[in-house]
Amino acid sequence: MTTADTSGGLASWNDGPAAAAIRDFVGRVTTDGSPEFVPPAERVAVFDNDGTLWCEKPMPIELGFILQRLAAMATKDPALRDRQPWKAAYEGDHQWLGEVITRHYHGDDTDLKVLMGGILQAFAGMDVEAYQQAAHGFLHQGQHPTLGRVFRDCGYQPMVELLEYLAANGFTSYIASGGDRDFMRPVTEAIYNIPAERVIGSSNALRYTPDDHGGSIVYLAEPDVFDDGPVKPVRIWSRVGRRPILAAGNSNGDLPMLRFAGGPSRPGLRLLVLHDDPEREFDYVAGSERALDEARAKGWTVVSVKDDWSAVFTD
Amino acid sequence: MTTADTSGGLASWNDGPAAAAIRDFVGRVTTDGSPEFVPPAERVAVFDNDGTLWCEKPMPIELGFILQRLAAMATKDPALRDRQPWKAAYEGDHQWLGEVITRHYHGDDTDLKVLMGGILQAFAGMDVEAYQQAAHGFLHQGQHPTLGRVFRDCGYQPMVELLEYLAANGFTSYIASGGDRDFMRPVTEAIYNIPAERVIGSSNALRYTPDDHGGSIVYLAEPDVFDDGPVKPVRIWSRVGRRPILAAGNSNGDLPMLRFAGGPSRPGLRLLVLHDDPEREFDYVAGSERALDEARAKGWTVVSVKDDWSAVFTD
Repeated sequence: MTTADTSGGLASWNDGPAAAAIRDFVGRVTTDGSPEFVPPAERVAVFDNDGTLWCEKPMPIELGFILQRLAAMATKDPALRDRQPWKAAYEGDHQWLGEVITRHYHGDDTDLKVLMGGILQAFAGMDVEAYQQAAHGFLHQGQHPTLGRVFRDCGYQPMVELLEYLAANGFTSYIASGGDRDFMRPVTEAIYNIPAERVIGSSNALRYTPDDHGGSIVYLAEPDVFDDGPVKPVRIWSRVGRRPILAAGNSNGDLPMLRFAGGPSRPGLRLLVLHDDPEREFDYVAGSERALDEARAKGWTVVSVKDDWSAVFTD
Repeated sequence: MTTADTSGGLASWNDGPAAAAIRDFVGRVTTDGSPEFVPPAERVAVFDNDGTLWCEKPMPIELGFILQRLAAMATKDPALRDRQPWKAAYEGDHQWLGEVITRHYHGDDTDLKVLMGGILQAFAGMDVEAYQQAAHGFLHQGQHPTLGRVFRDCGYQPMVELLEYLAANGFTSYIASGGDRDFMRPVTEAIYNIPAERVIGSSNALRYTPDDHGGSIVYLAEPDVFDDGPVKPVRIWSRVGRRPILAAGNSNGDLPMLRFAGGPSRPGLRLLVLHDDPEREFDYVAGSERALDEARAKGWTVVSVKDDWSAVFTD
């Protein structure tokens, strides 16, 4: 039996139960001859993005990008200024938008539908390569409203180290986010070392239109996939073709993905990030109550930002 | 400028225009300092499967798997024996099934809908891991009806060598097939060295059902994606997040994917396999007429099985 060396890495994790659970799990699945050994090809890990790998408060980063576009539309067309979500975007009413997500987590999607309708209009007809460029620019230049850093630097340093640690131990990590897939892709490699093909997320419907130069793919004004809740394990299977053995999330929408990890015949590690540090980040449990209850009832690993992380953000 | 060494590999390709076009293209995009240099991360290649990477005659391999299942259903339930496609499966009427695909290539999907209805019923309620096991067994034990080899050995040796040659030159290859994604996955790594996460294809809808052991994902009796025609470039973008620079296919359904390769700002190589060898394989153009016309009109590379390949099958 070869014992894996799992002592390095994780420099921004305090010695505590979360770091110990990670090291213990990785040790068990990578030790050759161990009853829980998992071959490298099957060491698949999946990570939610908003609130798990990067900051999602006071509102998800993607919403800022959408707001910017909706405000520009309302500037051009005054008739839009009385209609949500253009009204909130034009007036800078961030509160209305933040509450949409909180209400979604509580099961009320009335305003989410209004917002989604606006989002569908916002990018309809744009081709994927132009959208990618716009998202890249926003993420590198846009400033987080309270943290004093560009969005590109809103990733959590301990999670970046966890991704490195897993890669060093033969894991392949994917993002499985409720956020827009093509919005994240321009920065996931730079921040997390996760390339575009390993980013799973929501998307509007797309259509290919041929021309004399290879054609283009444009967004339609209709949804395709909303990658949240029970859709997460389905999309993970569709994209990866394997059941993950490690899953990390922070909200109720991550519960099915967390339950799916491991499965009947293999070990599984489930991490739930708890935002309890109002000084260095934010302090909230709205939208995570059921996930926290289940994590505590089943002995999953709750990661406290305050207690488990010695640093929060990448620099 | 570093000149790439592109002389090795491709042992089963005759010296001729197809092999020369491949070597020339790979040389141009991998030669550092060349105006057409493409960084390794952007060297994405996409391959159709049926008729491009493995044999699709006298009927697609997947149809044999479906037939076996439908026949088993009709054996159990006599009422199914008068209904298509159970009737054809139960009676071993392969001709009806082969013609479904030919008619689809000609734009008539009447019988395809009948067949798809049967397929949806065939696997409804089965979980993805059980389906994977069944497909693995069929592909390793099932015998091709005329070639005297198991399905596992129906891949084209020159295409396997092309995949190796591309990998050696920094390319990442994906399968983008109209066939069922989860049916191919159990053998693509063994035959082509393409892992499950790089297999794009059709799929029925899936649903996650939780239980106390991680839950399971089962097929529903409804389609999700039929990965053919203009859907191919859309699914390639969705899965990869990049536009490929090389595409290989053999039928009209591959045309949009072939047109998509390269694009406005980068070089592109398009390969179209022509089945013209009745002695070693099959001789047919049904369903490929428009693709052949466009390939010849635009100077794409037509790969003749008879003239360009010194060996056809893997052994």
